[in-house]
Amino acid sequence: MENIKVGVLGATGAVGQKFIALLQHHPYFRVHELVASERSAGKPYRDAVSWVQSSPLPGPVGETYIKSTAEPLESTILFSGLDSSIAGELEERYAAAGHVVISNSKNHRMDRDVPLVIPEINADHLKMIEHQPYPGALVTNPNCSTIFLAMALAPLHRAFGVEAVQVSTMQAISGAGYPGLSATDIMGNVIPHISGEEEKLETETLKILGARNGDRVLPADISIGAQCTRVAVIDGHTETLSVKLASRPELAEVRAALEDFRGYPQEAALPSAPQQALWVFDDPNRPQPARDLMIEGGMSTLIGRLRSCPVFDVRMVVLGHNTIRGAAGAAILNAEALVAMGYLTGGCFSKEPHRRDACVETPAAAEPVAGR
Amino acid sequence: MENIKVGVLGATGAVGQKFIALLQHHPYFRVHELVASERSAGKPYRDAVSWVQSSPLPGPVGETYIKSTAEPLESTILFSGLDSSIAGELEERYAAAGHVVISNSKNHRMDRDVPLVIPEINADHLKMIEHQPYPGALVTNPNCSTIFLAMALAPLHRAFGVEAVQVSTMQAISGAGYPGLSATDIMGNVIPHISGEEEKLETETLKILGARNGDRVLPADISIGAQCTRVAVIDGHTETLSVKLASRPELAEVRAALEDFRGYPQEAALPSAPQQALWVFDDPNRPQPARDLMIEGGMSTLIGRLRSCPVFDVRMVVLGHNTIRGAAGAAILNAEALVAMGYLTGGCFSKEPHRRDACVETPAAAEPVAGR
Amino acid sequence: MENIKVGVLGATGAVGQKFIALLQHHPYFRVHELVASERSAGKPYRDAVSWVQSSPLPGPVGETYIKSTAEPLESTILFSGLDSSIAGELEERYAAAGHVVISNSKNHRMDRDVPLVIPEINADHLKMIEHQPYPGALVTNPNCSTIFLAMALAPLHRAFGVEAVQVSTMQAISGAGYPGLSATDIMGNVIPHISGEEEKLETETLKILGARNGDRVLPADISIGAQCTRVAVIDGHTETLSVKLASRPELAEVRAALEDFRGYPQEAALPSAPQQALWVFDDPNRPQPARDLMIEGGMSTLIGRLRSCPVFDVRMVVLGHNTIRGAAGAAILNAEALVAMGYLTGGCFSKEPHRRDACVETPAAAEPVAGR
Amino acid sequence: MENIKVGVLGATGAVGQKFIALLQHHPYFRVHELVASERSAGKPYRDAVSWVQSSPLPGPVGETYIKSTAEPLESTILFSGLDSSIAGELEERYAAAGHVVISNSKNHRMDRDVPLVIPEINADHLKMIEHQPYPGALVTNPNCSTIFLAMALAPLHRAFGVEAVQVSTMQAISGAGYPGLSATDIMGNVIPHISGEEEKLETETLKILGARNGDRVLPADISIGAQCTRVAVIDGHTETLSVKLASRPELAEVRAALEDFRGYPQEAALPSAPQQALWVFDDPNRPQPARDLMIEGGMSTLIGRLRSCPVFDVRMVVLGHNTIRGAAGAAILNAEALVAMGYLTGGCFSKEPHRRDACVETPAAAEPVAGR
Repeated sequence: MENIKVGVLGATGAVGQKFIALLQHHPYFRVHELVASERSAGKPYRDAVSWVQSSPLPGPVGETYIKSTAEPLESTILFSGLDSSIAGELEERYAAAGHVVISNSKNHRMDRDVPLVIPEINADHLKMIEHQPYPGALVTNPNCSTIFLAMALAPLHRAFGVEAVQVSTMQAISGAGYPGLSATDIMGNVIPHISGEEEKLETETLKILGARNGDRVLPADISIGAQCTRVAVIDGHTETLSVKLASRPELAEVRAALEDFRGYPQEAALPSAPQQALWVFDDPNRPQPARDLMIEGGMSTLIGRLRSCPVFDVRMVVLGHNTIRGAAGAAILNAEALVAMGYLTGGCFSKEPHRRDACVETPAAAEPVAGR
Repeated sequence: MENIKVGVLGATGAVGQKFIALLQHHPYFRVHELVASERSAGKPYRDAVSWVQSSPLPGPVGETYIKSTAEPLESTILFSGLDSSIAGELEERYAAAGHVVISNSKNHRMDRDVPLVIPEINADHLKMIEHQPYPGALVTNPNCSTIFLAMALAPLHRAFGVEAVQVSTMQAISGAGYPGLSATDIMGNVIPHISGEEEKLETETLKILGARNGDRVLPADISIGAQCTRVAVIDGHTETLSVKLASRPELAEVRAALEDFRGYPQEAALPSAPQQALWVFDDPNRPQPARDLMIEGGMSTLIGRLRSCPVFDVRMVVLGHNTIRGAAGAAILNAEALVAMGYLTGGCFSKEPHRRDACVETPAAAEPVAGR
Repeated sequence: MENIKVGVLGATGAVGQKFIALLQHHPYFRVHELVASERSAGKPYRDAVSWVQSSPLPGPVGETYIKSTAEPLESTILFSGLDSSIAGELEERYAAAGHVVISNSKNHRMDRDVPLVIPEINADHLKMIEHQPYPGALVTNPNCSTIFLAMALAPLHRAFGVEAVQVSTMQAISGAGYPGLSATDIMGNVIPHISGEEEKLETETLKILGARNGDRVLPADISIGAQCTRVAVIDGHTETLSVKLASRPELAEVRAALEDFRGYPQEAALPSAPQQALWVFDDPNRPQPARDLMIEGGMSTLIGRLRSCPVFDVRMVVLGHNTIRGAAGAAILNAEALVAMGYLTGGCFSKEPHRRDACVETPAAAEPVAGR
Repeated sequence: MENIKVGVLGATGAVGQKFIALLQHHPYFRVHELVASERSAGKPYRDAVSWVQSSPLPGPVGETYIKSTAEPLESTILFSGLDSSIAGELEERYAAAGHVVISNSKNHRMDRDVPLVIPEINADHLKMIEHQPYPGALVTNPNCSTIFLAMALAPLHRAFGVEAVQVSTMQAISGAGYPGLSATDIMGNVIPHISGEEEKLETETLKILGARNGDRVLPADISIGAQCTRVAVIDGHTETLSVKLASRPELAEVRAALEDFRGYPQEAALPSAPQQALWVFDDPNRPQPARDLMIEGGMSTLIGRLRSCPVFDVRMVVLGHNTIRGAAGAAILNAEALVAMGYLTGGCFSKEPHRRDACVETPAAAEPVAGR
């Protein structure tokens, strides 16, 4: 059993908290370091965080002293929930210092040499790290609502070819972080805009569904139109999809493609993988965020109302847990895939799978990270 | 100034209440009779209703004794908020007895000889009543979410030709009537299905945008795909639209077509008509149900986020007040149009406009309505 | 390990569902029979229930065929979530037929010979069943909001004597059952009245805190004034208390009395017992229903803002999970106490503890319950 | 008709916005100046404000350029919605410069020479301004929840003597300003603490109900215990009260005292005065914030569930609109009272009522306010 030291970047934020909550009983990742802003650095985590998770703050984590972004770190893997205003430069710096940065931030997702991965779909894109110009590595997961869209499209694209998609989202307030939205703004309301969200759905999906050619990804050729709204839901992004296919399958074939969908996490039995990647509901009133979100620990993507479409070919409703499968859980699954692929054999990082002798040195033992 | 006696069918229900609230200060419609189920009949309205409007119950209405559906009625116009389980037969019976039935119920909307009217769009369809087989008349308004869709499409269809639409709705709980949804089911939730709603959007819209040929309507040739959900909003249906056009206008032309849209209610200055039929917002965060719904008394249709679409041509968000412009207010506007067109000259109904001498007799003076 | 057959009365209702959810992994109670109204009888449970629990319906329970209230039952223990309109007569009938009825319904709580029990406080009241006039037994738990009030008062009454209490509640919608409240009525609202609730707080509390004298309870001499409201919360009743004490303890002594409070469930290590019966929070913003309710599986009573009172002696906020500790979980804890006290040795019921030979016969083997 | 120039201090905040909305059609106050922080100063109001009122921003106000707190002002009356972090010093400075400062901020409410006024109760306290050490004046209104408590207690105190009160509040999110609470914190939740709120209820009420002796107020001798919580309501503070009286009136006498309550605003027919200061509901389910709040434009105090109390004498539920009667409307009513009492005859301020010749000079014509 591996025992790998991990750090959490942006540890006091909503995503950072979710990393800590989800890693609490992880079979081989150990939360070793917490990194936050200067304001929090030097304090015990318990005193710096406004803990808003439903599970209690794990005791030992609460006692951990927070490090600043200027200090050298010791962890092999760094899970990043850094704010996008600072993630761009910092994540590269950590990768340059030899860390494996697994980021949920948006900054590097579309970088040419950075894999953007949902391991059920494109685990092979992780191999791009072998070509990255750092001693460490930098891996990203997509935007939350993009993950559920891509999960629903992937089996259809493989089986029938997706040509065009119209997607309209109803996104939960937790997607805006904490404190996030003012209650005055969202209670009993719908806000018809989420800044930058539609662009992410329209571009990230193409990279995820694209084909890797060595160190590059050729984006998929799909036309995507996204419309994103915020609704008064705590957790869970709901999306209505209408999909135009290249071939003309029966609905039963579409359903079978969705239900049978499995990928590397299921094959490699990754600890955080859902057994059933996609759940298809028959009850037309499901799935619902307040009822169905925690199926398989929040790691499955839930599909309902599969039916034909008068304009395109098939329609459906897709729902997923935005802070678990859509954020922290997605990053953890990516890290588990790296472990299973042999990049972290013996708890150290090597770009040559299963070659412990080719590991980068423990980062903090090497040159310290340059101060800011 | 006209002074026309009106009755409200289904007076204790949510739509019936809204009729009463909106008619309170009407310049020429006077609430004269209230009709409800056997259970309520014979009681003063105040004792039978669970009044859930934000304005107080008008005193004289509260003292009015409720009539049963078996009793003959005296009012020229009957506004119907009857439940669809009984509206089908009863509305025909009242039209046969000489009443002008202005219905918000779904039963007769798609009947071949019944006009389905939004007077900004197809006021001329009202002339179909001249061919109806009753001494009275039967006029319907569309389903709530259909009204806002049709209002947004009508100017585009006229100017550029609409070929296809994808619409996804987020509908308020008041659309389900009262008591309607259980709080347990909808608080902090999204329900991904509203029974029968998508079919209404996909069929009613075509009739409204269709061309009248004497006593018939040729439906518009538009492909519509609708996906309807319920969200935790009190009033106001929000819809995301993606529209495929026959021609390729600039966005500025689309916007001008929307903002310049006006029809019979504006030309004839009907009392309930909004001055600006369509409002176009620049702020990408608007319109919002909790903020903007009462613009022009809830009778305008609000449009935001007008922009081009990667899949079709233009995208936008549409919002309207579902119980005012989408229900009771829509029916009242239809009745006002009939008055302005001369069908109710002198307060009596004639199929020949402005011909008081051709009026049907006051219904209750004629043969009584057959008991049930 | 005991293995006791239990039935659930009112199985399709909200309380019945919670019984089923909580009993799913119980160490010795096995759900054997489900009883519901004529309308549901004869159907598999899955087809008759509108399952609104957050955990999925346990498979075997879903396949169980529902019995009517007219059929004889086989279970030793019957957990009753019957509607109060029928619970009165039916529960007595089942007790007369030899069943141990553990009821959450209000009907018999204040009956002179029926114990009203919170086992941390008055487990000895359970001995009253030895004097009941049935071959079986009838045990009740208090109203949900009463349970949290009594739990907070019990240690204070023991240590310092409680003379008077003012309590004001903010109760969750799940307390009204399912479908319960209309969303139109409660979203963004406070309803200042819950029918019958204040009377329950003011009377049941006195019986629970009273002293048993053989087969009778002498109510406690405390003056209680309750004001109950409904708020837009899914689960969790919050109560503000102001308490007048006979003696004048320091706040630290009050706190110690609360934190040290334990009773029979903790001593006997009952399976559903919280380890810490009362949790006292220091953070003035806690406890909160949306954050803290599931501490110890929803079986603890949570206390915050302990401070002195300008009018009485001490003030505090009390919170508890109304459908777990306040309903189904309370009944299950009562049944576990009966088992631990020896009334169900070997899975059959005897009024003489630990005397299997004195058991009543298996009810269904005896005379069938009279049909309705 | 008077025509008095008024300024709004803290104009972009939630209270400042409400001042602007309420003053839009005022018969004699004209919004002449808007004052906000350095960040907003120099901009048109429309560009600086995030307008969250349900009525649209009045056009001319939107075009008004915001002044900084360092600039001299021209308005006779300044309505202050300043943040308490700066209100203390600034309000005194403006009074020293000759302005009549009508403040909703907490800073000076309990100052010995500052009147804390609800004009129905203690309009005579306004005369304290004659003794203030400024050329201008400084008048405050109470905290929002205090206003409703004091309004309910005042007639009881006059008629029967109030000895003690227990009050528990359920306060709306708008009371926390804008952006105020995070949606994550309050949706579906109750927060059992509002910082400083209980102290205000317990002290301000005594000053309001106290007797003025020249330039001083002798606080009322009432024991008050308050417990304050925040609930998921947009507008409207609900309070449960239990009141101990010196005499023992019948409930009907208590009710009559409440319903008959009127004071200076009603006698002087102030423009913002409710005709009925206190509304008493018979329906036990009323008043409700989502239904009843806008009675008399949000200026009445609403009372329900009047009944006897097992611990004290009478109990009731009290509700009021926290941002209208509880804040901006309260301040405007105070200003209207000053006008009616003759302190602003001819639109200029004089400490000698009805003596225009004794007016202070127009402030801005005098020495400029000292820069910060």
